[in-house]
Amino acid sequence: MVEADFKYIIDTFFALFSMVLIIFMVPGFAMLEAGLVRTKNVSSVLTINVMIYAVASLAFLLIGYNIAFGAWENDSMSIYAAFLFQMAFVGKTINIMSGGVSERVRIIPLTIFAVIMGGLIYPTVVNISWGADIIAGTFLDLNMYDLAGSTVIHSTGGWALLAAILIMGSRKGRYVKGKIRVIPASNIPLVVLGAFLLWIGWFGFNGGSVGSISSVDNANAVAKTIMNTNTAGLAGALIAAALMYFRYKLFDITMILNGALGGLVAITAGPDLYDMYTPILIGAIGGALVVFAVPLFDKLQLDDPVGALSVHLVNGIWGTLAVGIFVADISIIEQIKGIVIVAIFAFSSSFAVLYIINKIVPFRAEDDAQVEGMDVNECGVEAYPEFKRAI
Amino acid sequence: MVEADFKYIIDTFFALFSMVLIIFMVPGFAMLEAGLVRTKNVSSVLTINVMIYAVASLAFLLIGYNIAFGAWENDSMSIYAAFLFQMAFVGKTINIMSGGVSERVRIIPLTIFAVIMGGLIYPTVVNISWGADIIAGTFLDLNMYDLAGSTVIHSTGGWALLAAILIMGSRKGRYVKGKIRVIPASNIPLVVLGAFLLWIGWFGFNGGSVGSISSVDNANAVAKTIMNTNTAGLAGALIAAALMYFRYKLFDITMILNGALGGLVAITAGPDLYDMYTPILIGAIGGALVVFAVPLFDKLQLDDPVGALSVHLVNGIWGTLAVGIFVADISIIEQIKGIVIVAIFAFSSSFAVLYIINKIVPFRAEDDAQVEGMDVNECGVEAYPEFKRAI
Amino acid sequence: MVEADFKYIIDTFFALFSMVLIIFMVPGFAMLEAGLVRTKNVSSVLTINVMIYAVASLAFLLIGYNIAFGAWENDSMSIYAAFLFQMAFVGKTINIMSGGVSERVRIIPLTIFAVIMGGLIYPTVVNISWGADIIAGTFLDLNMYDLAGSTVIHSTGGWALLAAILIMGSRKGRYVKGKIRVIPASNIPLVVLGAFLLWIGWFGFNGGSVGSISSVDNANAVAKTIMNTNTAGLAGALIAAALMYFRYKLFDITMILNGALGGLVAITAGPDLYDMYTPILIGAIGGALVVFAVPLFDKLQLDDPVGALSVHLVNGIWGTLAVGIFVADISIIEQIKGIVIVAIFAFSSSFAVLYIINKIVPFRAEDDAQVEGMDVNECGVEAYPEFKRAI
Repeated sequence: MVEADFKYIIDTFFALFSMVLIIFMVPGFAMLEAGLVRTKNVSSVLTINVMIYAVASLAFLLIGYNIAFGAWENDSMSIYAAFLFQMAFVGKTINIMSGGVSERVRIIPLTIFAVIMGGLIYPTVVNISWGADIIAGTFLDLNMYDLAGSTVIHSTGGWALLAAILIMGSRKGRYVKGKIRVIPASNIPLVVLGAFLLWIGWFGFNGGSVGSISSVDNANAVAKTIMNTNTAGLAGALIAAALMYFRYKLFDITMILNGALGGLVAITAGPDLYDMYTPILIGAIGGALVVFAVPLFDKLQLDDPVGALSVHLVNGIWGTLAVGIFVADISIIEQIKGIVIVAIFAFSSSFAVLYIINKIVPFRAEDDAQVEGMDVNECGVEAYPEFKRAI
Repeated sequence: MVEADFKYIIDTFFALFSMVLIIFMVPGFAMLEAGLVRTKNVSSVLTINVMIYAVASLAFLLIGYNIAFGAWENDSMSIYAAFLFQMAFVGKTINIMSGGVSERVRIIPLTIFAVIMGGLIYPTVVNISWGADIIAGTFLDLNMYDLAGSTVIHSTGGWALLAAILIMGSRKGRYVKGKIRVIPASNIPLVVLGAFLLWIGWFGFNGGSVGSISSVDNANAVAKTIMNTNTAGLAGALIAAALMYFRYKLFDITMILNGALGGLVAITAGPDLYDMYTPILIGAIGGALVVFAVPLFDKLQLDDPVGALSVHLVNGIWGTLAVGIFVADISIIEQIKGIVIVAIFAFSSSFAVLYIINKIVPFRAEDDAQVEGMDVNECGVEAYPEFKRAI
Repeated sequence: MVEADFKYIIDTFFALFSMVLIIFMVPGFAMLEAGLVRTKNVSSVLTINVMIYAVASLAFLLIGYNIAFGAWENDSMSIYAAFLFQMAFVGKTINIMSGGVSERVRIIPLTIFAVIMGGLIYPTVVNISWGADIIAGTFLDLNMYDLAGSTVIHSTGGWALLAAILIMGSRKGRYVKGKIRVIPASNIPLVVLGAFLLWIGWFGFNGGSVGSISSVDNANAVAKTIMNTNTAGLAGALIAAALMYFRYKLFDITMILNGALGGLVAITAGPDLYDMYTPILIGAIGGALVVFAVPLFDKLQLDDPVGALSVHLVNGIWGTLAVGIFVADISIIEQIKGIVIVAIFAFSSSFAVLYIINKIVPFRAEDDAQVEGMDVNECGVEAYPEFKRAI
């Protein structure tokens, strides 16, 4: 067998393996969010997750892949495997956004936004950072290093979320006379299950982003990427646990898991470039940023029921900067340029699209509907109809 | 290394990878069904799922594999990997059947049926369609194209279910004076989790059915198969959502997911043969069929709490026909012949076996036991003992 | 491509595949235990599972791997993949221990113990059985055959658990005036989900322990290992179901699943060495041992809410003996010697460390805290705050 065929076969298999891991993030986000919101909004959140996967993936198939990568061609692996790996990413940016506007967002306008985000906005971000460089040679041709998308995926989703929160406002009853009402998560086992499905999906996300496992060097790079990814998650969880304990003498599992996710986002820009100890520092800072950012966003009355701004936006930025700080031959200037340009594009395009959709089909459910719960009003399906409510 | 050894190693690895994905369908079916039934029957449904995996797999090991494939030999991969991949399929046909008779079926007779289905009935279907062709040369030697079992798995399970419903009747209280009483799903997050574990399992089911990834052509075929499989699921979900919304102005997540599963069943006969757009049509029709078939079976008082007849039987038939319709060099006549022969064999043999078992150990729980719940009567273990019931 | 490079690439990929499966055991243990304990202790159990993964893995990275295997070197695959595969094991021993002291253990002392177990105790056990043999040539240089850790993982965890139960005592209210109060599992779907995530993880655990898939012989060994692993689980489930039914005329799903897990533990010492029928016997004995051991430990007032002593300790010993009994060229004497030396070391070192930690930070929660629930006292996060309690 010729070496090129061997590489083609192995890299196709490896891309499929990675893609499957990433698809576990679909139930991962769904379970995480279903566990974090109130029982009256669980069916709605789950429906949104399913709709995002369906429409964003189809939009990426029909339009987005072309915008991101140009022609349907690939010499190093099956084009279908290459597509599937990239398609697995697209819903994630929208999941990040949808989670943060849970408990008041309506399904139809969000689904419309998912089409545009998956078909146009996200593919354009990919084009200028990883993709076909259709607009190469312009200022927008980025040289940022972002292996698996601290900026391209996580910040992009985070900026879209910020735009969405500004347009939709906070949940009814969340901030009353300047006071923050605590709304506890309704199902902690689902939160833990969801977080670990995301964690496992990350191995495919970052490991697969190396793009090939079919040489000794690439095999090492993939394994190191997965190891460093995991390490940053461990450190993020640990520091969040420590900070919560020192402050409250209690271990808040939702914050510990968000700390882990923050560490995972932070490592995502450059897990292949670090030695095996640096991810401990990067992940720990990522976890700490979550612990400090969550109350900060609440103070700003940016109502985000799942902590997505803290996990994805703050750590997307931190992770992209970290590559410039810790890796000698990466220019911090190019990293900052990438962060800023993606920020401007993702925020302004999302805001514009959300604003227009909102004029036609309002995103925000009426106050009465929010009080009654999104499930009854949007789905006609209660999540737990046989279980008596305590509150 | 000689090329044959390379292929042997890669294809063994790939079969194991595929088999692992299919095994995720065991908790997939279990969670889906546990979420769809009432809380008083959840432990029973879960126990049945575990028992099916245990007895059907052992029956296939001890008897079924020989009937299906003849000798324990394989030159292209490890025989143990080939066995595991095939064993992963066997429980599925019975899961399809057991789900549809939930909330009234008793564990012991169902377990006995699982032994016979896994050891004899299903292996015979495999023999005449994919297998060793022991009865080759007769009318029963099928030339149907059915890559991963729209007919061999899904219709077979569906016909067994139809026979079972005819023998067991509907749940106590489901149809009263010609009226249909709606019985809502008890735990929606479990339904979503289960559906996505099934969806991910399908990648192994269909992708692995290509049988090899160790050449460039096969790598392309595997990747295309997984891509087309996924696309049909996306389209099935989307069309079910649209139809439900146009009719009820509500998004019923259980129907959306059954639409996705319907699309996945429909693509299963020929995902390797289509271009990348045809699966959108096949999956969309599959999803629509589910939406229309569910109330139709209810009108016929064929009581199927999880919609398995609509998802697996109707779409198993549709998917097998679709290959004949959309692929030029596949004979629609051979497809129909395959559908009909499997239908006759699967329905009549299942009916006969169920009928005989039912005479000795009745399948149907007494009305009182159904009202009290299967869990107390069959398991002695309530699913949620600390949670107060609302209804 | 040279053959050595091919093997390096494939074995790195295979180790990563195996490691990912094992990581599914992290949510697996978490869901299993969250389902088995009372609702008031669910957040605590989940937090402990997350903390164990974080601190034990980091301790293994910083100290443990060196103790177990010496230098960070590997010629046959990427050292990072080799590390990840081994790291995936380390938390398991502690999970075994932590599950059995659920509902009364406090998070901080357990986390401290996890650091020492993951950084020192477990790596030392690995060193003398699988590892770098730093103390080779002494009596402690074991020749036990234990492919994937019936003794090294499962008994080690079990002995640590026995030490912990002796130090911490039983749950408040479990044994009153010599009577055993039955405390039912609170969420059966989570138990089933957790058990199957463990089952699937076992394929990576045992299959990956073959260490290579990159030759025809090794590919066969891996596939046979996974097949035999699965078979033992099937037989364990089936025999537990049968025994429970013969005794109580009821199918207790928690016991059936523990029977399956017992079978899986029992096969773990030598799944590559048996023919394809012997695992049925080994697994069946494993499942039966669980059914008999659970009430026995309760009679001894060794309070173990999840049955971990029966599943992991009893079957770890049985599985290690079984290799000596059923495989001609394995010395039963060496197996017994391994069992005994690991028992002495694991029990005494765990006991000593637990005893010292307990003097400084008591492991056992106060009786009042146990009655109120660990979640309120340790986490400040209730698992199901919106669900009304029935009991």
